[in-house]
Amino acid sequence: MNFTPLSFDPPRGMRDFYPEDMLWRNRVFDAWRHAASVFGFQPYDACVVESLELLQRKSGEEVSEQIYHFEDKSGRKLALRPEMTPTLARMIAARQGQLAFPVKWFTIAQCFRYERMTRGRKREHYQWNMDVIGEESVSAEVEILAAAAASLKAMGMPDDAYKIRVNNRALLAELLAKSGIAPEHHAAVFLALDKRGKITDEEISALLEAEGLGEEPIRKTFALLGVQTLDQAATLAGADSPALATLREFFALSEIYGIADRLVFDIAVIRGLAYYTGIVFEAFDTERKFRAIFGGGRYDSLLTTIGGTPTPAVGLGFGDVVVVEVLKDLPGETAAGKNGVVIGYMFAEQREAATRLARALRVQGETVDLMLSRQKPKQFFSRAGSSTFADAIFIGPDDVQKGAAKRKNLATREETDVPLCT
Amino acid sequence: MNFTPLSFDPPRGMRDFYPEDMLWRNRVFDAWRHAASVFGFQPYDACVVESLELLQRKSGEEVSEQIYHFEDKSGRKLALRPEMTPTLARMIAARQGQLAFPVKWFTIAQCFRYERMTRGRKREHYQWNMDVIGEESVSAEVEILAAAAASLKAMGMPDDAYKIRVNNRALLAELLAKSGIAPEHHAAVFLALDKRGKITDEEISALLEAEGLGEEPIRKTFALLGVQTLDQAATLAGADSPALATLREFFALSEIYGIADRLVFDIAVIRGLAYYTGIVFEAFDTERKFRAIFGGGRYDSLLTTIGGTPTPAVGLGFGDVVVVEVLKDLPGETAAGKNGVVIGYMFAEQREAATRLARALRVQGETVDLMLSRQKPKQFFSRAGSSTFADAIFIGPDDVQKGAAKRKNLATREETDVPLCT
Repeated sequence: MNFTPLSFDPPRGMRDFYPEDMLWRNRVFDAWRHAASVFGFQPYDACVVESLELLQRKSGEEVSEQIYHFEDKSGRKLALRPEMTPTLARMIAARQGQLAFPVKWFTIAQCFRYERMTRGRKREHYQWNMDVIGEESVSAEVEILAAAAASLKAMGMPDDAYKIRVNNRALLAELLAKSGIAPEHHAAVFLALDKRGKITDEEISALLEAEGLGEEPIRKTFALLGVQTLDQAATLAGADSPALATLREFFALSEIYGIADRLVFDIAVIRGLAYYTGIVFEAFDTERKFRAIFGGGRYDSLLTTIGGTPTPAVGLGFGDVVVVEVLKDLPGETAAGKNGVVIGYMFAEQREAATRLARALRVQGETVDLMLSRQKPKQFFSRAGSSTFADAIFIGPDDVQKGAAKRKNLATREETDVPLCT
Repeated sequence: MNFTPLSFDPPRGMRDFYPEDMLWRNRVFDAWRHAASVFGFQPYDACVVESLELLQRKSGEEVSEQIYHFEDKSGRKLALRPEMTPTLARMIAARQGQLAFPVKWFTIAQCFRYERMTRGRKREHYQWNMDVIGEESVSAEVEILAAAAASLKAMGMPDDAYKIRVNNRALLAELLAKSGIAPEHHAAVFLALDKRGKITDEEISALLEAEGLGEEPIRKTFALLGVQTLDQAATLAGADSPALATLREFFALSEIYGIADRLVFDIAVIRGLAYYTGIVFEAFDTERKFRAIFGGGRYDSLLTTIGGTPTPAVGLGFGDVVVVEVLKDLPGETAAGKNGVVIGYMFAEQREAATRLARALRVQGETVDLMLSRQKPKQFFSRAGSSTFADAIFIGPDDVQKGAAKRKNLATREETDVPLCT
């Protein structure tokens, strides 16, 4: 046995959050919770440990190879969830008879993905999940995207700093069918096309050939990706295409919600997960410098896959990594302003006055960092000045005698009197 | 291979949180965050997956047998943390040269413990951790307990509904030494005595015998547990006992913090973790109907154990399970009041007015549940009445014509006019 010295680093691919990292994380989490609340979504959660079988029940995608899994002492096969949607489907299925549909639920869930090739990607992240379960109309999609837009606004992201690219898998399915590609090949075609940009077009062609597609259908498949507008799509799909009508209704409703300026139709948006059945979407920073900020879509068949009653559903997954990269890249961005007050004291005799003052301010809800032992003034103000606190109160013998101390704004150096209770 | 049908239950010992469960959980989490904020504790976090070696480095306790552990594809030994303190120690050690001590940090961390005999206990819980690192004086202990008391007040727990029982392991060590028990046996004696109430006194005697203690030292050890007051302890430990002086300073300071009414000296409080070195504490509901609400103490040697510089530290762990049981047991307790507004509409023609109203109220920060499709009035008010929302607005053709709708308080049936923008 060889003994390796204990490392102070987190396990590979996992993140530590120091207080300065938490400033960014809380800015994102608080904005998510705020948007979920104003849009009337209800919170839910489940354990990060899920049954492996549930996670594997959705097939046809890479995720299942990338699951951290293990057995408990009774031989139960468990796993760290790579995404929240199967768990949500399980929880909905368990109460399908009791819930008043549609339900609008949200959670902030840690998810794990074991990627061998990390390319700087982490193996865990937090994901805001918003789902509308039990609503057939596109108002579900627009409601979710408006909430996502509201969260970005709450984080301080300008409306013109990002675009949400929208497609409809049902439209793509109609167009593939018109190109002579039978429905049983569509899932494989979606997954192959979704790899565009990650692998070469030749490699995608090879995947399509392996699926049994001939040269002509492969050429037509690539040609579809040249469609730029809904009107161009209409010439191929026909004016009576149901998938096109859905997209047009979606864009009309998004005008009323006030988010149409951030939406773009993009036939190349497909999404990697097999379970999407209708509208799919992905948000990117406008300059496309970063990976997708969030993504999601309609998955009307997932509950059936795990044994529930057929139920229409729309979901969004919004991770905590890319959005912070985008926010940090905005001009003039810093994590947070200073607030609260530090209280210190010179000698043990002033500890009681300092403690009583801290107690009084805390009862009023103010953030107070009370020094836990006596300090010299220089030592106190040096620490206070480099902290996240806005004000400082230092109590010496004279202050206690006067029954008042000075509260100093550390930036402006302005002082105000604070009465001391003894 | 036998195929078991897919279960909709969470894995054994793990919890699902439906929206009604989240009302309780958010009440607790919000109170924890509020108290941490007003006491000036800074947030930190780390991944629930930790290196197994770090967790096993602390020895002499049962926890390490109860760790969920697994290997990743590179053979790294990983585990789901059973507690947060080793991770905290690792993060502090990694930045020991840069941090301005003392630091006051908090987190709300999910922790796992695989217990074979569950006795209704879950295998995961969330734990609020508050730690003061780098402070030798008992002001660290009192600061943490005052913050814990503030969180209980914020949850709605009356001050007289709980007691915090306090001891000092250093006092027990002094008394054991005076009883002729050498220091190398103290850790084992602490762990044995901590099992009181869980196993019989005869079984504890057997554990002490196995540790090599004779009949007389065992009798004296049990006699120590009869000590009721600090004055009784003084007659045994001597008036100049440093451990007693620490306890007296602790109780004096707690008067100034305004929490002395909830503190009780209890020599039988020991705590199960091996790393505590000084004051230890446990909070219980006053009637002792439930398990401990929170616990913690001073652990001045932990950083050395993992390879860091010696650093004094005090920590508190406060789980989310017992406190909710205690809160639910209080007379007249319910999770939360109703708030926000549900907006519905009768025909597709009123969808735009309903959507614009929802949009305007949401921008103002109000919680709005907008119905995603048309409804009959009866259907709408039936759903709204059984929801968590306080008010309801239902928009019909007449309302749009008038340019105003009625906002109805669902409890009092009072109505106010709301202008509609079209």
